[in-house]
Amino acid sequence: MEQQKWWGWGSYEKFTCTKNRSLFEPFLESKVGSTGDFPVPDLDTIEITKSDVDSKFFFDLCNIFEERVSTDKLTRLTHTYGKSFRDLLRVRENVIHISPDYVVFPDSEEEISSLLKLASEHKVSVIPFGGGTNIVGSVESVGDRPTCVVSLRRMNRLLEFDKASHTATVQCGALGPEVESQLGELGYTLGHYPDSFEFSTLGGWIATRSSGMQSDKYGNIEDMVLSLKMVTPAGEIKTVNVPRHSIGFSVKDLLLGSEGTLGIITQATINIRETPNTRKYYGFLFPNFHSGLRAMHSLKRGIPECSPTTMRLNDPFKTQLSVAFKEDKKPNFIKDNTESLAKYYMKKVKGFDFDEVSLMIIGFDEPHDSYSKKVKKIKKLWSKQNCFFLGDSVSETFWKTKYDFPYIRDYLLDRDIAGDVSETSTTWENIEKLYDNVIVSTEKEYKRMGLKGVVGCHCSHTYEAGASLYFTFGWRQRDEKREEDYNRVKSKVQQLFIDNKAVPSHHHSCGYEHNDWTEDALGTLGVETYASIKDTLDPDGIMNPEKILSKNKPARWKYKK
Amino acid sequence: MEQQKWWGWGSYEKFTCTKNRSLFEPFLESKVGSTGDFPVPDLDTIEITKSDVDSKFFFDLCNIFEERVSTDKLTRLTHTYGKSFRDLLRVRENVIHISPDYVVFPDSEEEISSLLKLASEHKVSVIPFGGGTNIVGSVESVGDRPTCVVSLRRMNRLLEFDKASHTATVQCGALGPEVESQLGELGYTLGHYPDSFEFSTLGGWIATRSSGMQSDKYGNIEDMVLSLKMVTPAGEIKTVNVPRHSIGFSVKDLLLGSEGTLGIITQATINIRETPNTRKYYGFLFPNFHSGLRAMHSLKRGIPECSPTTMRLNDPFKTQLSVAFKEDKKPNFIKDNTESLAKYYMKKVKGFDFDEVSLMIIGFDEPHDSYSKKVKKIKKLWSKQNCFFLGDSVSETFWKTKYDFPYIRDYLLDRDIAGDVSETSTTWENIEKLYDNVIVSTEKEYKRMGLKGVVGCHCSHTYEAGASLYFTFGWRQRDEKREEDYNRVKSKVQQLFIDNKAVPSHHHSCGYEHNDWTEDALGTLGVETYASIKDTLDPDGIMNPEKILSKNKPARWKYKK
Repeated sequence: MEQQKWWGWGSYEKFTCTKNRSLFEPFLESKVGSTGDFPVPDLDTIEITKSDVDSKFFFDLCNIFEERVSTDKLTRLTHTYGKSFRDLLRVRENVIHISPDYVVFPDSEEEISSLLKLASEHKVSVIPFGGGTNIVGSVESVGDRPTCVVSLRRMNRLLEFDKASHTATVQCGALGPEVESQLGELGYTLGHYPDSFEFSTLGGWIATRSSGMQSDKYGNIEDMVLSLKMVTPAGEIKTVNVPRHSIGFSVKDLLLGSEGTLGIITQATINIRETPNTRKYYGFLFPNFHSGLRAMHSLKRGIPECSPTTMRLNDPFKTQLSVAFKEDKKPNFIKDNTESLAKYYMKKVKGFDFDEVSLMIIGFDEPHDSYSKKVKKIKKLWSKQNCFFLGDSVSETFWKTKYDFPYIRDYLLDRDIAGDVSETSTTWENIEKLYDNVIVSTEKEYKRMGLKGVVGCHCSHTYEAGASLYFTFGWRQRDEKREEDYNRVKSKVQQLFIDNKAVPSHHHSCGYEHNDWTEDALGTLGVETYASIKDTLDPDGIMNPEKILSKNKPARWKYKK
Repeated sequence: MEQQKWWGWGSYEKFTCTKNRSLFEPFLESKVGSTGDFPVPDLDTIEITKSDVDSKFFFDLCNIFEERVSTDKLTRLTHTYGKSFRDLLRVRENVIHISPDYVVFPDSEEEISSLLKLASEHKVSVIPFGGGTNIVGSVESVGDRPTCVVSLRRMNRLLEFDKASHTATVQCGALGPEVESQLGELGYTLGHYPDSFEFSTLGGWIATRSSGMQSDKYGNIEDMVLSLKMVTPAGEIKTVNVPRHSIGFSVKDLLLGSEGTLGIITQATINIRETPNTRKYYGFLFPNFHSGLRAMHSLKRGIPECSPTTMRLNDPFKTQLSVAFKEDKKPNFIKDNTESLAKYYMKKVKGFDFDEVSLMIIGFDEPHDSYSKKVKKIKKLWSKQNCFFLGDSVSETFWKTKYDFPYIRDYLLDRDIAGDVSETSTTWENIEKLYDNVIVSTEKEYKRMGLKGVVGCHCSHTYEAGASLYFTFGWRQRDEKREEDYNRVKSKVQQLFIDNKAVPSHHHSCGYEHNDWTEDALGTLGVETYASIKDTLDPDGIMNPEKILSKNKPARWKYKK
């Protein structure tokens, strides 16, 4: 099974390259000051804990999985962490807290069921592992018990296809491209494209309540799952495969977002649709982020029938970042002059302040070209916000580079620059206030800390009642203070969400990183209820310990007001 | 507080009248044979259990609610049952198993919270009561403990209105018309119109996972609730008021459908939209039910952008029923001749067999007339199914009579005819098979029982993956065997759902009537999980005992294969 880099994001063959992005380094330096050097340690120097291969558990494990048990260093290291900023930081600092003792690769529910029985008996912790892209510490080994990581990657097949009902039953270890290629052969798509798409799995999406960049049209993962199967230590759950029912509660909705703490999601029946034939993305520039937010809101209210598949608004910082990240172009007299003229027009006629300009991308994935009319109406509506239409020139770049961004954190870390994200959701009523408060307060926090830092944001995933705000922050790291600084900024931003009527996460899930705020999201009784559900399905507490709810979390720096 | 009839559906002023429906009685007799006489007993002859008004509990109760505690016969009787067929039957047979001891009418969450503390202390059962329209025994007193019914009807106000986010916070005791009139004054609507709309409450809708006749456009109640407040014996729960989050599970989704077994839902923040300005309903006749189902399916797949707000397909029996239920018209030479011509055309040209003809109603509630174009496209698409377009003549009748149907069971009972419903949902792949099996097997069962019975169905509430089938059945009752016959038919139909890959209920909830099939819907571990949730939120087991899950249910006749 091919794995991601043990020390960073994605494929070993791919990394962020700024050779032909001459604007990027100057931009970076202008924002965070000088860059530094913070290399990945040699694999040889990494020390990880030993696996107990003399145990009765290991013997029995080998009986179940035979050659599909790994205890070698690289496999265990690759399954030690996910890809949170803290994970990347710890690897570079050569801090591998606990590595899993064993990594197994089951082929069937029966094997998983046997494993959970065995693990319950021996009190071994079990952590389900999809693609390992989680950025909130969902797959980290915690506690004193031995840990067995279960990679679902061999269970990646499409099992059933129901053409009439537009559903497919797929094994949960399928990566995004594996889901889409198997459906694609039949002429269908799921339409779930999170930024992690290339390396994350169907099971991971379900277990973390994932959301994709086309959620405005296709909904979030909870809208796409008709039914699912989960193997828990208490037995197997197969939820009813019907569009809806009203007997008590929805078991499916309870298991969605359980992050491996209740059991292992092994397969799901998902709603699919015919592959759209057309795809087109357009850009708009707004005089500022607030006018862009109002434009999004006005589209939802005024012409909802024209809603794009994707709608994403960058704030000024993220707009400047995306401009700085563009590849250099060969000089082109006509194009360059047109651009200059456009800039002149924006500045002189429209009165744009380029420090405030905000880029909106809207995209359409449709069965046929019904978007041209929609775009016309959108342009008319948004002209009230004094926007500037960029046309579809962004279309190609957007698609070509849409999965490139997660690689950038490794590039930044090479230069000793921290870069991370926190995202949330709130109502339209509250969204402008939330944005302002998070930006202003984070900048103040940098000042207090003496950091030269940046914070930016984009808005996406819109709903009738509100939308998601996705914040990006970064700074030049300080020796010996890397984790402390990170804790402080991350914690500050999360607490700002809570203090401003928002939630700890819109779609990145909880894991170990956000569980200081679980009670803020679920309430005290929600937390108690979850604990009782866990006791029922996982009576020996073997499943992914300390995620979502943590009783024994080591004290990290937590932001206090 | 005005209440429904103590012995039947709805307002005392309204009942089914067939004076100017000359087709109806002959139709009835042709279907179930001769009618009989099964009168409502005199109120004076009804005996109900005594309330213990000397108890310490009652004394404390009066301290909380003062004059808002009722122990009088009529109030207690009206809060004894809901409106299930079994409830109506028992009242007519003068069988009042257990009446609640006390009915209270709280004004606030604080009072409810005090009540739950008091009831936990004294081990008194508490049953939340909205409009009392539930048809699956959700509000019935069960067990040996004294029972206090909590009518939410005084808590019926709109508390907050958020124009930007399109949300309103409404107290859960508001009846449908109270919700809509308060929103209507602001120019908004919730758009949730179950058949019980006039007499059911927002809280009831949420507690039972209700679905309205416009669900194809506005979604079901779970899609309309952004957040809610519930008072449980363990304390108060207020779920986060955001469009979405991904921290663990969704507490809101867990409480949706809890039917008063976990606590009392007191208020909810709901998604609202601007009141549509136009409303138009159209009729189509299909050669048979199957071609109608395929037409619905083809609309979902071919021209989803034309989806109506409401789409309901009657099978032949229900089509004939609706024709027979039409009011008599004055003779009109032109109209009558047009009708005759249309009939001739359908029979001779289209080859319709009138015993198989199925009526489809589609309706549009839109901000402006965008439906004309949609109807044109639908007509074109459906012409492949050899349908006959009836135009919009059905529009007025549909709206005028849309809440009349629940009254008919009382009319039938007056004539000693049983009439009830069972509904379910399934995938498109399975829907035709399910329909055939339920119809054929129910008819066989009538034969085995020696009953002259009818069974019909309509299809509504469509989804990407499937739809709901709503079965109606009836027969001429037999003295001394009324409940036995009912148990047998109802049980048979429910079991047919389970045996044909469907669920015990799409939107009528579980209550006491369906809890023999709870495990079929939730699975064994789902049931255990629910029990653990209940133990957490309701440790003394005071909340609406024996609903959803029943340990001590008296044996009723249960269908065995």
